[in-house]
Amino acid sequence: MGQTLTEKILEDHLVEGNLETGEEIGIEIDQVLTQDTTGTMVWLQFEAMELDEVQTEIAAQYCDHQTYQFDFKNTDDHRFLRSAAGTFGAHFSRPGNGICHQVHKEHFAAPGKTMLGSDSHTPTPGGLGELAIGAGGIDVAVAMGGAPYYIEMPEIVEIRLEGELPEWATAKDVALELLRRLTVKGGVGKIFEYTGPGVETLTVPERTTITNLGTELGATTSIFGTDENTQDFLDKLGRGDEFVELSPDEDAEYDDQITVDLSDLEPLIAEPSMPDNVVPVREVAGTKVDQVMIGSCTNGAYEDILPGAKMLEGREVSKTTEMIVAPASKQASEMLAREGWVAEMMAAGVNFSEATCGACIGNGHVPASDSVSLRTFNRNFEGRSGIEDDNVYLCSPEVATAAAIAGEIVDPRDLADDLGDLEDPGIELPDKYLGSDADLIAPDEAVDDELIKGPNIGDVPLKDPLGSDLEGEVLLKMVDNITTDHISPANADVLMYRSNIPKLSEFTLARVDETFADRALEADGGFLLAGENYGQGSSREHAALCPMYLGVEGVLAQSFARIHRANLFNFGLIPLTIDEETYDAIEQGDEVEIVDDVREGVANGEEEFTISVNGEEEFTARLDASQRERDILAAGGKLSWTKDQVDEAGSGAPADD
Amino acid sequence: MGQTLTEKILEDHLVEGNLETGEEIGIEIDQVLTQDTTGTMVWLQFEAMELDEVQTEIAAQYCDHQTYQFDFKNTDDHRFLRSAAGTFGAHFSRPGNGICHQVHKEHFAAPGKTMLGSDSHTPTPGGLGELAIGAGGIDVAVAMGGAPYYIEMPEIVEIRLEGELPEWATAKDVALELLRRLTVKGGVGKIFEYTGPGVETLTVPERTTITNLGTELGATTSIFGTDENTQDFLDKLGRGDEFVELSPDEDAEYDDQITVDLSDLEPLIAEPSMPDNVVPVREVAGTKVDQVMIGSCTNGAYEDILPGAKMLEGREVSKTTEMIVAPASKQASEMLAREGWVAEMMAAGVNFSEATCGACIGNGHVPASDSVSLRTFNRNFEGRSGIEDDNVYLCSPEVATAAAIAGEIVDPRDLADDLGDLEDPGIELPDKYLGSDADLIAPDEAVDDELIKGPNIGDVPLKDPLGSDLEGEVLLKMVDNITTDHISPANADVLMYRSNIPKLSEFTLARVDETFADRALEADGGFLLAGENYGQGSSREHAALCPMYLGVEGVLAQSFARIHRANLFNFGLIPLTIDEETYDAIEQGDEVEIVDDVREGVANGEEEFTISVNGEEEFTARLDASQRERDILAAGGKLSWTKDQVDEAGSGAPADD
Repeated sequence: MGQTLTEKILEDHLVEGNLETGEEIGIEIDQVLTQDTTGTMVWLQFEAMELDEVQTEIAAQYCDHQTYQFDFKNTDDHRFLRSAAGTFGAHFSRPGNGICHQVHKEHFAAPGKTMLGSDSHTPTPGGLGELAIGAGGIDVAVAMGGAPYYIEMPEIVEIRLEGELPEWATAKDVALELLRRLTVKGGVGKIFEYTGPGVETLTVPERTTITNLGTELGATTSIFGTDENTQDFLDKLGRGDEFVELSPDEDAEYDDQITVDLSDLEPLIAEPSMPDNVVPVREVAGTKVDQVMIGSCTNGAYEDILPGAKMLEGREVSKTTEMIVAPASKQASEMLAREGWVAEMMAAGVNFSEATCGACIGNGHVPASDSVSLRTFNRNFEGRSGIEDDNVYLCSPEVATAAAIAGEIVDPRDLADDLGDLEDPGIELPDKYLGSDADLIAPDEAVDDELIKGPNIGDVPLKDPLGSDLEGEVLLKMVDNITTDHISPANADVLMYRSNIPKLSEFTLARVDETFADRALEADGGFLLAGENYGQGSSREHAALCPMYLGVEGVLAQSFARIHRANLFNFGLIPLTIDEETYDAIEQGDEVEIVDDVREGVANGEEEFTISVNGEEEFTARLDASQRERDILAAGGKLSWTKDQVDEAGSGAPADD
Repeated sequence: MGQTLTEKILEDHLVEGNLETGEEIGIEIDQVLTQDTTGTMVWLQFEAMELDEVQTEIAAQYCDHQTYQFDFKNTDDHRFLRSAAGTFGAHFSRPGNGICHQVHKEHFAAPGKTMLGSDSHTPTPGGLGELAIGAGGIDVAVAMGGAPYYIEMPEIVEIRLEGELPEWATAKDVALELLRRLTVKGGVGKIFEYTGPGVETLTVPERTTITNLGTELGATTSIFGTDENTQDFLDKLGRGDEFVELSPDEDAEYDDQITVDLSDLEPLIAEPSMPDNVVPVREVAGTKVDQVMIGSCTNGAYEDILPGAKMLEGREVSKTTEMIVAPASKQASEMLAREGWVAEMMAAGVNFSEATCGACIGNGHVPASDSVSLRTFNRNFEGRSGIEDDNVYLCSPEVATAAAIAGEIVDPRDLADDLGDLEDPGIELPDKYLGSDADLIAPDEAVDDELIKGPNIGDVPLKDPLGSDLEGEVLLKMVDNITTDHISPANADVLMYRSNIPKLSEFTLARVDETFADRALEADGGFLLAGENYGQGSSREHAALCPMYLGVEGVLAQSFARIHRANLFNFGLIPLTIDEETYDAIEQGDEVEIVDDVREGVANGEEEFTISVNGEEEFTARLDASQRERDILAAGGKLSWTKDQVDEAGSGAPADD
């Protein structure tokens, strides 16, 4: 039986286990990526585990989420990260140099490599054949220390692309079409592998838009094989020698197959407030638009901004619409500036921003109340933009620009008909990617050799090892699809506390219930109760760390998002799966007790636990976990567990278990 | 006897009074300018006074202070301002289009005109012969309604410029030299008129840097005559027909004269944390620099950024220093982008920002703790950058760029010696100022015809008319030079409440004493006690409005800054001047009572009031005020007073008093 591309890369990196779906495997990690809002915790954990040097081929620390530096705590974080990168041997990308995924793609991403990143959009370079997975910070810290990364072998799903995109349909629409079909839970436990004759019609930047948005499907990662387009892209980057030919075997067997005929696609848009709420643009045409933003790791590259710039040439942004372009990298900005496009956009009325994640996480350019914002970003979760009851739509740069010109949502095909002289700008790659390295500090150029910690940079809290008895109040009952933005918000006034867990914890789940943090602290122990897909969204481990700090001991949910589930283990919170009947039977305020000896059950592979509610009814809850995960949970989390491992091994790198 | 230039313009606009120093005069206002953090209150007051149309030749509403829109309240403010400009007939400049003073200079400022602006740096266009004065918002609202502006006739001081600037000395150094000599109080009650043979060696952009910084001297305004350079500048702007020849008479008599020999100047720098703390750059050379910023209304024009860009060409910003360039207008950005300079700066490692006041008011790019920031801005008041205990230095773009290259403070002459190939870039004006108008909405293009108020936009609080008895606790005793940044901070987390006085008031004087707002509210009445130059800095009327809201009834100070003093009258707080002995004798917590009948004394021109302290000691406090100011104070503030006037006159425009 032939192998899928994913299996080939995994096999090349396999340290432990077999490539059987559902079985835990350990793989070697070649590259790691961290950003500023998860990175501080990564390095504090790296330090706390007494690791002393990066062991992966590449480790890169980016500053992209809070580059506006609204508070000295942001700036202190950046200074700390520079010092950590310098001290431990990582590349450092200065604030303003761009979004991690874009800058990593430009400088480091390479076919056939594995990468772990403390950001959920880490899969982006799958578009050029890198197998890249998002993970919680401590997983990244441990991998950076040289240990394998453990994961349950996902299903491999083939997404076969046929045909060719028609005019005005874009790579973003491919991803939106998948979200429309599969929903935000459609990729859970899966890796999407793109094949078929449609692939060669897509440039690498288009492919990375698609792999980037695989995260919104809940996928572990997404990947394309390599071809002439990949070689061409790497050549243009000046890294042509990093090309490796990669493709699945002819007779590869997939767990599932989905076909998308590109020629059937048309401009699509995700309505508020979920990325899978997708309809044709024409269905919502005429909606007045107050703000348009082009940018983010999804659609902020040179190739994404250029079409918008071309559409705006000689035109103006509607007087009732504000348009902001925030490039995903300074290299993209520099190239667009050199070619005159930045000036053209400014002339059209665009507010041209520094390169930042910024608004995508509610950090700046927050929409006005009762207004509509069209964004080329990847998420429109309610409130993520920085205001509750927002109306954020997700679309391609072409659709966004059309709306900016018209002042309302319009299918660009219809706008082109109206204007007469508007043509589909298409995708154009530069002859050569030219951009300065001035903002990248390589390990051998490091300017720091010790950690610089501002007053807001605290220690990593530790949890006690798991006890035998576990009981407590159900502190909060939540619905389906609760996101990490609900659990630990990322708006500017909260983000500055990412290195200060006691303070950050005050905001935990406040968007669901403002009284939660106080109640949790007071209760001194308890459970969270949720529906399906709990913890979708970002990789931020703070969504586990803060509940842990507040005393939460476990989460009962109908299902968990992958990275968040791993983060719960990593911080010693038991994630128990319950069925719908059980979910319905338990109410907020109920007293829940795990009847069995929890420590023993967890350590000894018990898959079912009996829980009693208010000492009356009894239900069954499942713990699906590998022995490694059980050991981590029993130890009170990965930090304690890894320290034990390091102590036992007597070496700088944590041993395999 | 001949006339000064100032007298000529004032005489042209005189509506009431005589041009005698110290006498109150009323002048007609041709232009008004408002920005986003003071403008919302201006328009709310315009609405509350039941005025319905702008009466001045030009009214322009800019959005520049909070363009990052960290919170929906900022974005709501901008939307409200667009609607107010449209409804009442003002030009509207969209967020991202630039800083009011720069954009106004580009589009509207003209020789011989008078202007009132709700921003303390309104005097900027004095560099091209406009007599422009900063004022509290309600004064601007009333002037916009067509009423004269009343002011005590200042002293006119001649600043005679001799010689020519040597290499690496700049217009910024002229202003810093004056601050060094005269201090931040040196211009109180004065207008500075620049004359002499040195004037013609300075371009208009250099002159506006100097007039802009006149504000830091405490001057009412600063002004240059017009000449070939002015004509040239207006020609390049495409407004050559607005040129008017303006100069003082040969035999004009000034109240005072100061001579500055430009050829004696060298690169200067203001050390933390006061703009008059000026020393030669060489005195502080070697100080490590963490952050460098070029921008602001002082040094953010095309002509200010270009020298830095030239210095950076082919070079890189030090790896230990972050450099941010925030242009003062999109026109400047667009021109620099068209000419390739934006790309060059990016290549050197500059973080190129949208056009904004931003960091100058602590709104983004806040320095790290225990770090050094060099800025081309106008103020380095402690904490204004957004972090207490900051170390902000003020200098020219050339000195700032030299520090960015070296990673430490260095005199650019010495850096040039070191590098060998670094030349003084000098000042270069473009052949033509080219920039789009896409972000300016003229009154006849207005897109709104009614006010759009978000949930944070409240009403203007009113004060009762002055009573006969005034007594209360001294709620806070303060030192000299308390700034408006101390009284009503402008950091991002406070700025969003500029349209919401109850909420904004919670932050009043918190930087002096965190408990102040609560104590004041609880005390329900009371006094502030301060030393010299109380209320220096910005024009923000919130520094009077918030204490008024909290129940403060009067301020006892050794002296008052001009705009703040006017704002105290405007909001019904009695500003009493005391001598040093009285100041020393009164302590915080003391009970102060004005022994006389306050209402009667204020209304009837009483200049001395007896105050008793704790019912024991008695002192004398002075009220130096015009009858108009007394009437406003007695009415409980200018809003009530103007409404009375409008009602009496039965017309849209407030009558003269």
